Amino acid sequence: MDTATTLHDRIRQTINSRTKPPGSLGLLEALAVQIAVLQSTIAPRMERCTLIIFAADHGIARAGVSAFPQAVTRQMVLNFLSGGAAANVFARSVGVDLQVVDAGVAGAPIENPGLIRRRLGAGTANFLDAPAMSPEQAARALDDGAAIARATAGEALAFGEMGIGNTATAAALAHKLTGLPLERLVGRGAGLDDAALARKLSTLQRACARVPGILPAERAMAEYGGFEIVMMAGAMRAGAQAGRLVLVDGFIATAAASLALALDPAVRPALVFAHRSAEAGHGVLLDRLRARPLLDLEMRLGEGTGALLAWPLVQAASRMMTEMASFAEAGVSNGTA
Amino acid sequence: MDTATTLHDRIRQTINSRTKPPGSLGLLEALAVQIAVLQSTIAPRMERCTLIIFAADHGIARAGVSAFPQAVTRQMVLNFLSGGAAANVFARSVGVDLQVVDAGVAGAPIENPGLIRRRLGAGTANFLDAPAMSPEQAARALDDGAAIARATAGEALAFGEMGIGNTATAAALAHKLTGLPLERLVGRGAGLDDAALARKLSTLQRACARVPGILPAERAMAEYGGFEIVMMAGAMRAGAQAGRLVLVDGFIATAAASLALALDPAVRPALVFAHRSAEAGHGVLLDRLRARPLLDLEMRLGEGTGALLAWPLVQAASRMMTEMASFAEAGVSNGTA
Repeated sequence: MDTATTLHDRIRQTINSRTKPPGSLGLLEALAVQIAVLQSTIAPRMERCTLIIFAADHGIARAGVSAFPQAVTRQMVLNFLSGGAAANVFARSVGVDLQVVDAGVAGAPIENPGLIRRRLGAGTANFLDAPAMSPEQAARALDDGAAIARATAGEALAFGEMGIGNTATAAALAHKLTGLPLERLVGRGAGLDDAALARKLSTLQRACARVPGILPAERAMAEYGGFEIVMMAGAMRAGAQAGRLVLVDGFIATAAASLALALDPAVRPALVFAHRSAEAGHGVLLDRLRARPLLDLEMRLGEGTGALLAWPLVQAASRMMTEMASFAEAGVSNGTA
Repeated sequence: MDTATTLHDRIRQTINSRTKPPGSLGLLEALAVQIAVLQSTIAPRMERCTLIIFAADHGIARAGVSAFPQAVTRQMVLNFLSGGAAANVFARSVGVDLQVVDAGVAGAPIENPGLIRRRLGAGTANFLDAPAMSPEQAARALDDGAAIARATAGEALAFGEMGIGNTATAAALAHKLTGLPLERLVGRGAGLDDAALARKLSTLQRACARVPGILPAERAMAEYGGFEIVMMAGAMRAGAQAGRLVLVDGFIATAAASLALALDPAVRPALVFAHRSAEAGHGVLLDRLRARPLLDLEMRLGEGTGALLAWPLVQAASRMMTEMASFAEAGVSNGTA
């Protein structure tokens, strides 16, 4: 504890020695402290980031909870692999590596050498009637996610997802983990109108009544999880355990982060909440986690697009620690002398 | 008008043809429209940006309106030139070129081959007692700013400033341009305590009573301007006239943008408000301009640091137009078929 306090003091001193009024870089200073504490150094490095997009399908989509047909999950995986999706464009633009994982897309396995295949099935079961997956599948999803994360390089990991119906799954899972009311967690996803939104809510209320009450993490993820969400939670946990920064994207990634935290609260210091999505439930879930996201651009696309746009901020915060001159070095009066 | 409407429609169609739910990239879509309209194309380019930091001193600083001594302006210019300031670090991190202009720093001219010298004096006069500058100096500041902007390369220009006392100048100038109450425009700058903040406000109230009422732009800038602020306004206007995007930083840059708009309202379509500063008057001034800034990171450093952090968002928005696959190209169902 003494050592930790000393490190924290040294980090604060380093930031305050830099040529700027104390506190004037706002959230970037808090981010710099987080990065430095995570790496246990006053000279952190934040040079490389990998975005992992987990894709899977959802049995609940058959209940009509999305504006898009289920085939879009598979089509978008192919779009990621050919470099044409928003996540590809943003990843190239900000210099982040991108990997795509088939965690359980409906239909036959996708044959593509660029794809990481960790299929747990052709989509989950419809959790309106039955558990989304078996406890064995859930455990394997966590392990596979961890293995995928460990195989990547870089000081930071960013997480994205693709899965038609997965705002419904994320709402159900977050509800079962936190007890937050479904009414506040359910949103329009890719673009439901009012009537479809009301149907989505009533469908999820029926589904969540199947196993009543707040559930332990292991039970919640098997009953109401998605393959991509559980795998992402496993990857987040492994990233955090390895001392890497974990960039959390929007509502679905935050539901995965909630699961990772329920499994292991020690994940928390690694998490950076990249942005506040326009999806209704995201702000509610962020507030529950006492998370202040870096960006608020009214985005609601997923795929890790928000996490990607936060990466330049993470790099700038880290470099502030190592590249800025101190008052003494630059011969600048610090106003208190 | 017909042509403009048609171009706007084509831009909207292009964005909506991209593989994402309509509107799901939020403010980035509005930004993409702005960029495309500015460049009159559905295939905009946003590859290069130059940050120009204008530095100058302020006579009002002698009235004790800053937490830092006036010598810091000069010291920070040297810090910019040796690459150690936050603006240098962020500019390198996001790939923006950086130029530093001596618009009128107190003391002898700074001899450095990396510095652009356009000195209008050794700081302005103290506008508590007399006009900050002559009408001739103000006119020359606008012209010099325009010439500096025209000599830079890139589709975008970002603007930063350094000048001890310049939140006081920016508050007085914004007050004289808009009529917004000084009480709402005056803030703590680099870190005034409550007593010093009260003194700053009463000093500015006395100064602004010297020439009562709202003033025309030409009069306001000479009576209450700063060399760096007026020069920046001239550079912003020239950038906008050349069809370049103008990234506006915090409170002082927004005061300069207000001046540029008062001189020529046609500047507006080129302006991107990069961030909301923690300096008290910035939100007030942004609201008056009906501006929704991209970032809100509680920063209040100036130097163009907020504008720099917005540059990756500008690039991502532009590339969304040109690099993302359409639904048809990627074979993705658009949910309405």
